[in-house]
Amino acid sequence: MRNGILTLTTDFGPDGPYVAAMKGVILGMARSAKIIDVSHRIAPQNILEGAFVLASILEAFPPDTVHLGVIDPGVGTDRRLIAVSVADQWVVAPDNGLVGGITLGHEPDGIWSIESPMIRRPIVSHTFHGRDILAPAAAHLLLGQDPDELGPRLSKVVALANFEARAMDRGYLGEVIYRDIFGNLVTNIKAEHLRGVRPEDWCVEIAGERISGLSRTYGDRPCGSLVSLVGSSGWLEVAQVNGDAAQTLCAGSGTTVWIRHRERTRPPVSAPVALMN
Amino acid sequence: MRNGILTLTTDFGPDGPYVAAMKGVILGMARSAKIIDVSHRIAPQNILEGAFVLASILEAFPPDTVHLGVIDPGVGTDRRLIAVSVADQWVVAPDNGLVGGITLGHEPDGIWSIESPMIRRPIVSHTFHGRDILAPAAAHLLLGQDPDELGPRLSKVVALANFEARAMDRGYLGEVIYRDIFGNLVTNIKAEHLRGVRPEDWCVEIAGERISGLSRTYGDRPCGSLVSLVGSSGWLEVAQVNGDAAQTLCAGSGTTVWIRHRERTRPPVSAPVALMN
Amino acid sequence: MRNGILTLTTDFGPDGPYVAAMKGVILGMARSAKIIDVSHRIAPQNILEGAFVLASILEAFPPDTVHLGVIDPGVGTDRRLIAVSVADQWVVAPDNGLVGGITLGHEPDGIWSIESPMIRRPIVSHTFHGRDILAPAAAHLLLGQDPDELGPRLSKVVALANFEARAMDRGYLGEVIYRDIFGNLVTNIKAEHLRGVRPEDWCVEIAGERISGLSRTYGDRPCGSLVSLVGSSGWLEVAQVNGDAAQTLCAGSGTTVWIRHRERTRPPVSAPVALMN
Repeated sequence: MRNGILTLTTDFGPDGPYVAAMKGVILGMARSAKIIDVSHRIAPQNILEGAFVLASILEAFPPDTVHLGVIDPGVGTDRRLIAVSVADQWVVAPDNGLVGGITLGHEPDGIWSIESPMIRRPIVSHTFHGRDILAPAAAHLLLGQDPDELGPRLSKVVALANFEARAMDRGYLGEVIYRDIFGNLVTNIKAEHLRGVRPEDWCVEIAGERISGLSRTYGDRPCGSLVSLVGSSGWLEVAQVNGDAAQTLCAGSGTTVWIRHRERTRPPVSAPVALMN
Repeated sequence: MRNGILTLTTDFGPDGPYVAAMKGVILGMARSAKIIDVSHRIAPQNILEGAFVLASILEAFPPDTVHLGVIDPGVGTDRRLIAVSVADQWVVAPDNGLVGGITLGHEPDGIWSIESPMIRRPIVSHTFHGRDILAPAAAHLLLGQDPDELGPRLSKVVALANFEARAMDRGYLGEVIYRDIFGNLVTNIKAEHLRGVRPEDWCVEIAGERISGLSRTYGDRPCGSLVSLVGSSGWLEVAQVNGDAAQTLCAGSGTTVWIRHRERTRPPVSAPVALMN
Repeated sequence: MRNGILTLTTDFGPDGPYVAAMKGVILGMARSAKIIDVSHRIAPQNILEGAFVLASILEAFPPDTVHLGVIDPGVGTDRRLIAVSVADQWVVAPDNGLVGGITLGHEPDGIWSIESPMIRRPIVSHTFHGRDILAPAAAHLLLGQDPDELGPRLSKVVALANFEARAMDRGYLGEVIYRDIFGNLVTNIKAEHLRGVRPEDWCVEIAGERISGLSRTYGDRPCGSLVSLVGSSGWLEVAQVNGDAAQTLCAGSGTTVWIRHRERTRPPVSAPVALMN
C-alpha cells in the first residue's frame, strides 16, 4: 500500500452513476483507498482543461498519490491507456495529452502502457474503460504493486499542443485555459516567464481591453477594475475586483491573451540583470 | 462492521446542508464509515431516475456495501421506510419504488420495515427522515448489526411502473429513463432483450428519427451521426457521435423509444434458434 | 488525533482545482483525515449563506469535528484568520462573520488568531489562504495539537448582521437566508421564537402573499399551496406543496419575511402564560 490517496478528475459530471461505479471498482480492490474528487465537471472531452487541472493540483498532494484522470473522447478506439510515474506521484489516464501539462514541467520517471488482461474487470465494455481498465490499474498502483505488471514501458507520452504560451517580442502570446467559478480567467502564461521585469512594466491585452501592471492580489484596485496577477497555481490570471471577468469580457477557454513589457532604454552595460528582479 | 462502505443517492442537491447532516449522523454512529456520494442531483422527487442510478451502480460495489437512497416526496406521510438485502448488498430507502429497479432483476433475500424507536435520532423532524431515521438505520447495518432490530419483516417492496420496456411485435416499446452529462439517452430497454438478433437488423425510433443497426461504441459512425448502442450499464442508449443527442433530439426522461428488428423469412424448421446468436 | 472528521464549506465551486488542493494539503499533514464536503456552492462571497450552512450542520456532527469554512472576499487584505472552539466542535475560518451564525447560539470556549509562521505552507500565495494557511491550521487541530500554537487568543469574533430576525409587535421581521434545491425558502426566523402561540394563529407574509397558519410538513395542504413550517434545521421555511416556492414567489436570499400572530383578547389575569404553549 502506497499512501493510499487516489484523486479523480473526469468529465463525467458529478451527478451520475459513472463516477460511483469507478469508485466501487477501486474500493473492491483497495478497500482502504482514500478517494478525493478533484473535478467531474471538466468541460466534456476538453483535454486541455483536464490537463490544466491535473497539473495544478499535483504539488499539493503528498508523494506517491495516484491521480486518475478520465477525459477520453477516444474510448473504444485504439488510443493507449497509460500509467506515468512523475514528480514523485502516479498518474493514470488515456494517452491523449491529458498528462501533457504535468510532463511539460517534470520529466517522467517511467511510462507504462496499460495492456495486461489480468488487471482489468472480467468483462470490459466498449464505452467505459475508466471503470473497466483504468480504475483497476489505479487500484493496482495504490496497493503498491509493480507497474511493470500493467504492460510494457513506453518512452514518451502524447504531447499537448497549446498548453504553454508562445514567446514573442517583449512578451508572450497565450490563451485562457480555465475559467474558475468566480469568473477569473487562468491563462497558459507561467509565472516564471514574468520574472526579471518589474510588475508595473507589464501590460496585458485580452478581449480588446488593456490592463497595465500586475497586481499582487484581487483586492488591490478599485471595485470593478480588471486586474492581472499571478494566481495561486503559478499561472497568469485576469480577474475583476468584486466582479466576474469572464462575463465582463465575454471571455473563456481559448480567448487570446497577450502580455508585453514596456520597451526600456537599455540598462548601462555594467548593470547586472539581477538588479531588475 | 461489514465492509464499511456506504453509498448515498439523493435529490438534495450537492450544495446544501442536508447531505452533510446525514453524513454527520452516520459518522457519529459509525466513525470508520467510508461514504461514497453517488448522486445528489437526481431530478427532485424523480423516483424513476433514482431507481435507475441505484440499479446501475450496484454490481460495481463489493459485497455487503450499504446503499442509502433518499428520494422521498412522501416524507411526513405514512409511506414506509425499508431496508432490503439483495444481490449481496444492502439498500435503505423509502418504500416508494426507489428499490424497484434493483428488485426487478434480483429477488430480495430479506425486507425490513424500519420502525424501531431505538434506531433513530432522539428528535425526529417531520421533514427530514433521511437524516433522522434512514441514516441511523444505514449506520446500524454498516456496523453489522441485526436487521431484525430495525423492525418487522415485509414480504415485498412497492413496485416501480415503467422501469422496464414493454415487449411488442418484433421488439420493445420503452422510454428514456436517464440523460447523462454528455446528452446520451439511456433507455429502459435491457441488453438481454436484444440478443438473438443481429445488431444490424435492429432499428431504433426516437423523437421522429430512425437509427438503423446497433453500434459497438460511440465513435463507430461519422461525426454528428445518431447511434444506438448497449451502454456500460447494460441498457440501450441513444447517442450522437461527438454531439449531444438529448439536445439534438429535444429528448429526455420520458421520451418514447421503439426498437424493432427487421422481419425475416422464418428460419427452416430444423435450424436451432441458437444459430441466431 | 481528535475524531479525525473535517468538514469543508466554501464558495470555490465543486469543479475546480482549489478544493482538491486544500484536501491535498490536509491529507499531507493528517493522512487519516476523514474529509466531508458540506458545500462548495455557497454563492460567491456570500458570507450570510455560508454562516447559515455552517450553523445548520454543526449539531449533526460528533464532538471534536473540525469545520473549515472558506468564504473569503478579503483574501490578501488584513482581515484575521481564526480558530474557534464552540459547542464541542472546532471552526476554522476568516474572521468576517462566517462563524457569526454559530456564535449567536453558542458562547465560544476559545478564539485564536491564526498567525504562526510555523503552521502554514512554506510559500503563502496572496490569493489562496484557504490552501496555504487555513488548511494547515485545520490539520493542526485535527491532529489534536495545541490551539495556542496557532497564535494569540482573541476575546470575540466579528459579528454577523442580519443573521437573526428583528422582534416586532406580535411577531418578527426577517429575511430569506437560504434557498434550497427544492425552492424552499429558509428564513432567519428561529423556531424557538414561535413557541407560545398556536400554529394556526401565525400568519406569514412574503413577496405579497399571505400564508395562514404553520404546517407540520410539506404535504399538509393541497398541491400547489404555499405553506410555512419549521424546517429540519429549526428555522421558519416557506415552501410550495409539490412546487418551487422560490420560483413561484420570485423570492430568494434577502427577500423580506414577516410573521405575526393574531391579536387575541387578553387572557384573564389569573391565566398562567404556560397555558398558551
